[in-house]
Amino acid sequence: MSTQKVCIGIDIGGTNIEVGYVNSSGEVIFKRHYPTKSFQHPDQFIRKLQEDVTLDRDLHKLAILGVGIGAPSGNYFTGSIEHAPNMPWNGIIPLARLVQDATGLPSLLTNDANAATVGEMQFGSAKGLRNFILITLGTGVGSGFVSNGELIYGHDGFAGELGHVIVRENGRVCGCGRLGCLETYCSATGVVLTAKEKLSQSLKSELHQIPIHELNSAHISKAAGNGDVLALEVIDETARILAIALANAVAITSPDHIFIYGGLSHAGEILLQPLRKYFDSFLLKNYRNKVKILPSGLPDEAAICGAAALAWNKI
Amino acid sequence: MSTQKVCIGIDIGGTNIEVGYVNSSGEVIFKRHYPTKSFQHPDQFIRKLQEDVTLDRDLHKLAILGVGIGAPSGNYFTGSIEHAPNMPWNGIIPLARLVQDATGLPSLLTNDANAATVGEMQFGSAKGLRNFILITLGTGVGSGFVSNGELIYGHDGFAGELGHVIVRENGRVCGCGRLGCLETYCSATGVVLTAKEKLSQSLKSELHQIPIHELNSAHISKAAGNGDVLALEVIDETARILAIALANAVAITSPDHIFIYGGLSHAGEILLQPLRKYFDSFLLKNYRNKVKILPSGLPDEAAICGAAALAWNKI
Repeated sequence: MSTQKVCIGIDIGGTNIEVGYVNSSGEVIFKRHYPTKSFQHPDQFIRKLQEDVTLDRDLHKLAILGVGIGAPSGNYFTGSIEHAPNMPWNGIIPLARLVQDATGLPSLLTNDANAATVGEMQFGSAKGLRNFILITLGTGVGSGFVSNGELIYGHDGFAGELGHVIVRENGRVCGCGRLGCLETYCSATGVVLTAKEKLSQSLKSELHQIPIHELNSAHISKAAGNGDVLALEVIDETARILAIALANAVAITSPDHIFIYGGLSHAGEILLQPLRKYFDSFLLKNYRNKVKILPSGLPDEAAICGAAALAWNKI
Repeated sequence: MSTQKVCIGIDIGGTNIEVGYVNSSGEVIFKRHYPTKSFQHPDQFIRKLQEDVTLDRDLHKLAILGVGIGAPSGNYFTGSIEHAPNMPWNGIIPLARLVQDATGLPSLLTNDANAATVGEMQFGSAKGLRNFILITLGTGVGSGFVSNGELIYGHDGFAGELGHVIVRENGRVCGCGRLGCLETYCSATGVVLTAKEKLSQSLKSELHQIPIHELNSAHISKAAGNGDVLALEVIDETARILAIALANAVAITSPDHIFIYGGLSHAGEILLQPLRKYFDSFLLKNYRNKVKILPSGLPDEAAICGAAALAWNKI
């Protein structure tokens, strides 16, 4: 059996850390899973990673070319996680350097949405595209912008925070400490909040059957699919707000594609159809009929593939 | 007398066309001026340009290296003016090709705000910067975005239309046919409209001395400088709306500098001071104290220099 060339993709989350070996086609050939809280300090994770990578390399006959890491509040330029709000590790953690020192492998780090964007470009539906936006609708709203074929990192590595454009002056309170960010309306959390507001004013909805503290965005998508009027209103309002933010983003970077990724994207056409309708109505005439909104084409293990793509992209 | 190396910068406007010979330091060594309406058809302009360039080249002993053109609705990729609303020439005009064919010189064209942005990078205050925004506050609002050291043109050459981000859903009617664009509030025209709205509700302002149809943004800046409360309110409201749009733009490209250019920028600190105050309050924490807002550093003949910079930048 000859050795197989792979890059390691590491997806760091507040709950789980996943480590996968990804070949040049974007296939995860083996992966490991660790609960984030099992490591009180990042050094403990680094030691475990070093052990397991050595094991896996020999066992699976891998030629490992590099490591890519996707992490919340990850900074590409410094290779550090910087004050991530939902992580058990505090402060500034120079994770790319720690991984590189421990494994001897070239290591790169960026935030999770940027990693997914590079993954979309390397393995997904954005192959060969030079100007596109990927937007992640999960617990929060993240994004990555590609212009002239390159991810926009900005002067400090923190570009692409579409979740934190202000869409309502004096709007909902955001985790970032400001008011009216896109994320407060169009994340899975934001959608649930919109539903709760509407449920408190109407008795007519199948969503009343779900205990209010258990309500999540999947329930809302499902109810909308069943034709529940209140759920459809929630999706419609979410789509309208997202459409303005996307039309405004297009006026800045003029992409030809926008990819929708993350939990809420599983609503599929239920969300995409009103989104496209509003987007067209809010779009400057110059851009009309030029910008496709599509679901992400990333495979199931997108976060790992995206992180690995960061390394594959530089090889 | 030896020959001097220059690029030609052509600034096309609805009222005037200016053609200047610009050396590598950004100095305009000679320029010509034509009323746009004296050419019913672009071919007439091209013939006149060809004649004059031949004359000027011999007279001033110039080695002309290229031509850059800044024009409303100018598309860099096609080199065409495409349906410019305020021009006597209609439809799609392949001006870069026409100029190149007539003069034998390599010719590039972009919109006026992008030309100013390249000018700022080549000759102004953005020398050496790799991530910045330039915003022009004139009759309209234009912008240019530079990321990773390159101007963002987008997939179709129409990127950088910050004037047409929607800042108020169902807001003021914009010339583009939509509602609530930044341009309707923060252009010179928008500021005058804000002042007229306020003047209709208050008798206390020195601006009442100016016939209402003659009121312009310079009057408002001047009155604000004199401490006129109503004028200061107009400037304050303009600054607040512009600040949100700029804070949102920073969340996309994360620049370290924003340059303010165009008629309204002559208000200087009267505008910049409240703009910086609101900008800081609307900016995501990650970006605070990292982004400088400064007046443009372009010389007086900025439009010509900016257009010429487009050619110099490619040499």
